[in-house]
Amino acid sequence: MKNISILGATGSVGKQTLQVIRNEKERFKLVAFSANKNYQGIIDIVKEFKPKYVAVVDKYICEKVRDYCKCENINIEILEGIQGLTTISILSEVDIVVTSIVGMIGLVPTLNAIRAGKDIALANKETLVTGGEIVMREAEKYNVRILPVDSEHSAVFQSLQGNDINSVDKIILTASGGPFRGKNIEDLVNITPEEAIKHPNWSMGKKISIDSSTLVNKGLEVIEARWLFGIDYNNIEVIIHPESVIHSMVGYKDGSIIAQLSSADMILPIQYALNYPNRQNSLISKLNFYEVGKLTFEKPNITNFRGLKLAYDAGIEGGIMPTIFNAANEEAVQLFLEKKIKYLDIIKIIEDSMNNFENRGNIDLEMILNYEKMVRRFIQDKYNF
Amino acid sequence: MKNISILGATGSVGKQTLQVIRNEKERFKLVAFSANKNYQGIIDIVKEFKPKYVAVVDKYICEKVRDYCKCENINIEILEGIQGLTTISILSEVDIVVTSIVGMIGLVPTLNAIRAGKDIALANKETLVTGGEIVMREAEKYNVRILPVDSEHSAVFQSLQGNDINSVDKIILTASGGPFRGKNIEDLVNITPEEAIKHPNWSMGKKISIDSSTLVNKGLEVIEARWLFGIDYNNIEVIIHPESVIHSMVGYKDGSIIAQLSSADMILPIQYALNYPNRQNSLISKLNFYEVGKLTFEKPNITNFRGLKLAYDAGIEGGIMPTIFNAANEEAVQLFLEKKIKYLDIIKIIEDSMNNFENRGNIDLEMILNYEKMVRRFIQDKYNF
Repeated sequence: MKNISILGATGSVGKQTLQVIRNEKERFKLVAFSANKNYQGIIDIVKEFKPKYVAVVDKYICEKVRDYCKCENINIEILEGIQGLTTISILSEVDIVVTSIVGMIGLVPTLNAIRAGKDIALANKETLVTGGEIVMREAEKYNVRILPVDSEHSAVFQSLQGNDINSVDKIILTASGGPFRGKNIEDLVNITPEEAIKHPNWSMGKKISIDSSTLVNKGLEVIEARWLFGIDYNNIEVIIHPESVIHSMVGYKDGSIIAQLSSADMILPIQYALNYPNRQNSLISKLNFYEVGKLTFEKPNITNFRGLKLAYDAGIEGGIMPTIFNAANEEAVQLFLEKKIKYLDIIKIIEDSMNNFENRGNIDLEMILNYEKMVRRFIQDKYNF
Repeated sequence: MKNISILGATGSVGKQTLQVIRNEKERFKLVAFSANKNYQGIIDIVKEFKPKYVAVVDKYICEKVRDYCKCENINIEILEGIQGLTTISILSEVDIVVTSIVGMIGLVPTLNAIRAGKDIALANKETLVTGGEIVMREAEKYNVRILPVDSEHSAVFQSLQGNDINSVDKIILTASGGPFRGKNIEDLVNITPEEAIKHPNWSMGKKISIDSSTLVNKGLEVIEARWLFGIDYNNIEVIIHPESVIHSMVGYKDGSIIAQLSSADMILPIQYALNYPNRQNSLISKLNFYEVGKLTFEKPNITNFRGLKLAYDAGIEGGIMPTIFNAANEEAVQLFLEKKIKYLDIIKIIEDSMNNFENRGNIDLEMILNYEKMVRRFIQDKYNF
């Protein structure tokens, strides 16, 4: 039995993690979870999974949850605020922490979980994008596994099994190309948030759907892959594969390529991470090659989707630059969702932010969190009217 | 340094094995090889690789080789006849025996090599098709590796690395579909040997090219896969994939599929088998996804290409039936190459042979060799005018 703590249990990946736990009760027990302010979501999880702890970030919702549990006589420890995230990440009875929380907020509790010797099922992009160097160093030091939950990194991870990392020639991340693949740059000018959140193959949250449409998401995955697998940026390639059947590949130096394929369903990478190195019975629909028909490949258009190029630039520059890239994107996407900027402004704002701050090396957690705030303030001051 | 003995060094796979050895002199040494009657081929190998032993099956050619080596003062032990195949398979200095010889003749020396504790790089189909049960039992007993050299089985083998065989749901063998894919049955009536040996993607010998065109080759591979990986026939699927980029796949019970892709070049599976579990620098052209463009999949047409269905039938019946299937095919293909029968007669003769002999279980080597002869005699008597 593995005891699980989920950071961000009411989000898209969090919910799907709960689905895996629900289906594999004999193997997994939800011990603790966090959420922000989805009251009903929190109550549903408390009732169904009967965890020992819940961390509620929002103060008002936390009070409501407290009242509910008191009235219903539910025995659970309720933690309030951000520090609760760390508390449920280092519990002695927890074996594996699923970091399905969105945003920079995931970095501190993930680092604390690693230092407490917990394996990490990693779905929080910011952890590796901003703190990859620190996180991987600590993971090695504390001998914990960083198990990727993203479909692409899970595919790479699966394609690496049984092979020596030194025999890898390149990592090939596939990208669907998003809803605007093949469009002219002029067509992108007036894209609305409603159009941008419609992903052709995957059902995901709003932020990541926008990031998929700009290819910024793929850029963040490139940076994650660099840290997760210890591979140089020169050896990480992105290929557009609109069918999202091959979730990523590893090219070996002998010319052999190993690929992982499946239906586009996040349940699989979550299930694989939780059960690693074992595989359990399928919770997803099986891939039908005759329905798939064909698999195609294109070069990414980095003229129209310059966010991918900027991500490589930020990654190669290293230091604090990926943090700047990521924070700028988060802030810009938020402004776009609020209809305060236009679609193509997202990338312009990222580039402007990268140019505005000088890069710095020898990063630490404090510097990351500081730059995050500075970038957000810079963008708010300049672009939010 | 691994010392290598090649059974059948002048054939297609044999030559490509030599190419790997030539390119990896620091890792491999050719100690011994066999050939049938390709005199110039034999002399070239003797001169270039300076092996200690050569086994020449043909008596007349053997004499010629002996004369040459005497005249040229070449220090080599020359063995004559079929028994030489076993001699060079059990040499104490040999680490790995490459069985790239074609036909039933490969079975006895392969078994002897296993019993002498040699790892086998297996390219001889008949070994597993006819004697799979015996061969795998002996391989386990003598703790030797059977390393597949066929591109499909190598792909499966690579896709299984780092995974538990018990988590396999199915093996998916891909097939190009051969030169007559999509043709009507009427179009197949007057196919000539010249048309049948033109394979769209692979450069191979005549016999295997014909077998690819009838899908009998894929059927033989299904039977091989059953033994090599210990997987039930119900869990072995064949998919037509005309581009020959995905060389085969493994479907796991969690719904994940791992696939191996590369350019269509036998050098890779040979190199992988010889270097296993390591990978060395590529000797083949790297796969270019943008040139490939698309990968497609179709169901095999087992009405027109009934040889595949018959192979499953023979495999599922088990016992001596796969030997009958294989011997009948070999004999029928030979008659077709000699233009004594028509293209579609190949499958009719296989079916007639399978119906003519009653199946037998508890097979042993003697029984296999006897049935082989009986089937050939049956076909010669009935079909060779």
